[in-house]
Amino acid sequence: MRAAVLREYGAPLDVVDTMETIETGPGRVKVRIRATGMCHSDLSGMTGKLGVPVPFVPGHEGAGEVVEVGGGVTSVAPGDHVIVNFIPACGECANCRRGDGHLCTAMMYKAAGTPNFRLDGQPVFSLIGCGTFAEEVVLPHQSVVRIDKDVPFDIAALIGCGVTTGTGAVLNTAGVREGSTVAIVGCGGVGIAAMMAARLAGASQILAVDPSPAKRELVTRFGATAAVSPEDAEAAAAELTDGQGLDYTFEVVGRPSTAEAAWKLARRGGTVVVVGVGARDDLLQLSLGTLATQSKNLVGSVYGGMDVPRFMQQLVGLWRDGKLDLEAMITRRLQLEDINEGFDLMKTGDAIRTVVEL
Amino acid sequence: MRAAVLREYGAPLDVVDTMETIETGPGRVKVRIRATGMCHSDLSGMTGKLGVPVPFVPGHEGAGEVVEVGGGVTSVAPGDHVIVNFIPACGECANCRRGDGHLCTAMMYKAAGTPNFRLDGQPVFSLIGCGTFAEEVVLPHQSVVRIDKDVPFDIAALIGCGVTTGTGAVLNTAGVREGSTVAIVGCGGVGIAAMMAARLAGASQILAVDPSPAKRELVTRFGATAAVSPEDAEAAAAELTDGQGLDYTFEVVGRPSTAEAAWKLARRGGTVVVVGVGARDDLLQLSLGTLATQSKNLVGSVYGGMDVPRFMQQLVGLWRDGKLDLEAMITRRLQLEDINEGFDLMKTGDAIRTVVEL
Repeated sequence: MRAAVLREYGAPLDVVDTMETIETGPGRVKVRIRATGMCHSDLSGMTGKLGVPVPFVPGHEGAGEVVEVGGGVTSVAPGDHVIVNFIPACGECANCRRGDGHLCTAMMYKAAGTPNFRLDGQPVFSLIGCGTFAEEVVLPHQSVVRIDKDVPFDIAALIGCGVTTGTGAVLNTAGVREGSTVAIVGCGGVGIAAMMAARLAGASQILAVDPSPAKRELVTRFGATAAVSPEDAEAAAAELTDGQGLDYTFEVVGRPSTAEAAWKLARRGGTVVVVGVGARDDLLQLSLGTLATQSKNLVGSVYGGMDVPRFMQQLVGLWRDGKLDLEAMITRRLQLEDINEGFDLMKTGDAIRTVVEL
Repeated sequence: MRAAVLREYGAPLDVVDTMETIETGPGRVKVRIRATGMCHSDLSGMTGKLGVPVPFVPGHEGAGEVVEVGGGVTSVAPGDHVIVNFIPACGECANCRRGDGHLCTAMMYKAAGTPNFRLDGQPVFSLIGCGTFAEEVVLPHQSVVRIDKDVPFDIAALIGCGVTTGTGAVLNTAGVREGSTVAIVGCGGVGIAAMMAARLAGASQILAVDPSPAKRELVTRFGATAAVSPEDAEAAAAELTDGQGLDYTFEVVGRPSTAEAAWKLARRGGTVVVVGVGARDDLLQLSLGTLATQSKNLVGSVYGGMDVPRFMQQLVGLWRDGKLDLEAMITRRLQLEDINEGFDLMKTGDAIRTVVEL
């Protein structure tokens, strides 16, 4: 089958048609991927920043149809439509028992460290255990979330990562409410999703911060009430809030400068949600002279900040009710052959989501 | 009247008997201080770390009796017993309107920058606008909280800072619950108060971390279920929680090393409350590689984390119901003449609270 494989860090992807999946063993399912979003984490993986062993198939924001199930799998059957969930929850650890399946590490690291494919008889890894830049993937059954068949695969794919991550940071981790003031620092797919969620929650001010003039142009469509470049962010926040700062700020990039900006934009007692994942030695430095007195709340949010399958179902419902304009997030569609174009587009900083249809 | 004044940073306090207060002008009240706790922040002020202008009268954890009220004051009358509240709430700013009077800065900074006393015709400042190491202080009426007359002044004084700060971090900021696992990093007065609150909230594990063997010895009395030195803290937390880390950790010192320890001791998705106030250039450094994925919650807590007068009344109630053993926190009583002994004792790290009776 066809797949896009990275053979060495920094190289373009190589689209091959002789990739094989591993066996659909006990507890596993084989999914025919129908659509996959292109996410900045794929690019980070491809530059070597995330330490994924090469060769590997990137892609973790995908949706498709179950075509085979291994022994003991009862949660899905061939023909079911599913979203790929890149944090499969074991259901047994302390995090899972507490209802925080998104914090489960029992399966994810193991999946990420196990080859998911074979090419020319050699093992091929995948990005965080997925590898949705392939026509077929074999995954633990906990890695797929069954959805109704009326949901288009491209919409389902977006829910697979960016939409869940961004909306969940706002709705679950932060709990933005009617009348809250909000800043979104970074307006890629996750930032846009966060913005739509802030609008949905009734935020009175949504300040979008992004260096791209093109992005600043289009964000009003997604709920931003103001859009500024990073240099102008502090002044804009001060003007919007009579110098107090914003109730909730979201860092959706994963860099020290944007994390610091999100920290500064929040008011005393405000909440700063870090969604972006940076390198291990990218640091956010906070002064102990003001941490207690300013009483800000800094919180990390991963993959929506709550039980992933349950939240994905909620998001499907919100999309169906017309409350999340996910179609508008897709700024480009590509075939697998042209996937490298999608990364060129991502590097310009002007795209929201490119979806590959397989 | 008598007062202890600091004439230059690092010097001992000078107890004089010719100190005068400023006038009890409109909106102000004069309080005859009857008891004052000695808090580590007083020592920080006296070493110059907090930038309080000299000469100044330290002391901010006090209680006494109203002896005079200025024009327009209706909230208290002469004869009332009061606790000094060092974050007077203006009642009008965005923080106050939101119910977060503890985050109000409208009056505190102004009070801290205005001399509260006169000595030999010269202005004398006070620590954060209080100066409770004096027989009399004149304060804005918002700086006193009226309490019932059955509350001893020494107990009331402790509620003036350490007890409110420590218990509020646990009960209000963190919201520790039945069965939660907790670490308290730093077992001074504030840490001990936090510990008692964690016990009151029903925490199942309370790990006390302190370098002083004497402190580690006595903390079981206040609810600690284990007590270790800082070097042993990580191993102890891992053992208590099957390697997961603790639900809630409290930093009650204000140093980079203790803040980092509190951060590390918390589990994925756990909450780290910073109560200690460090110097401006004391930094807590957090990796953007793990902030989102570990989804920890770092939150500052100042002066109990909620409306101060309301919480102080709650604490008086808890003390009256026998739920907070505040008497046991007083490890030494001194007269004002001997106040420097109290700081010597504080520097040993073995004392909880020394109370000066005036």
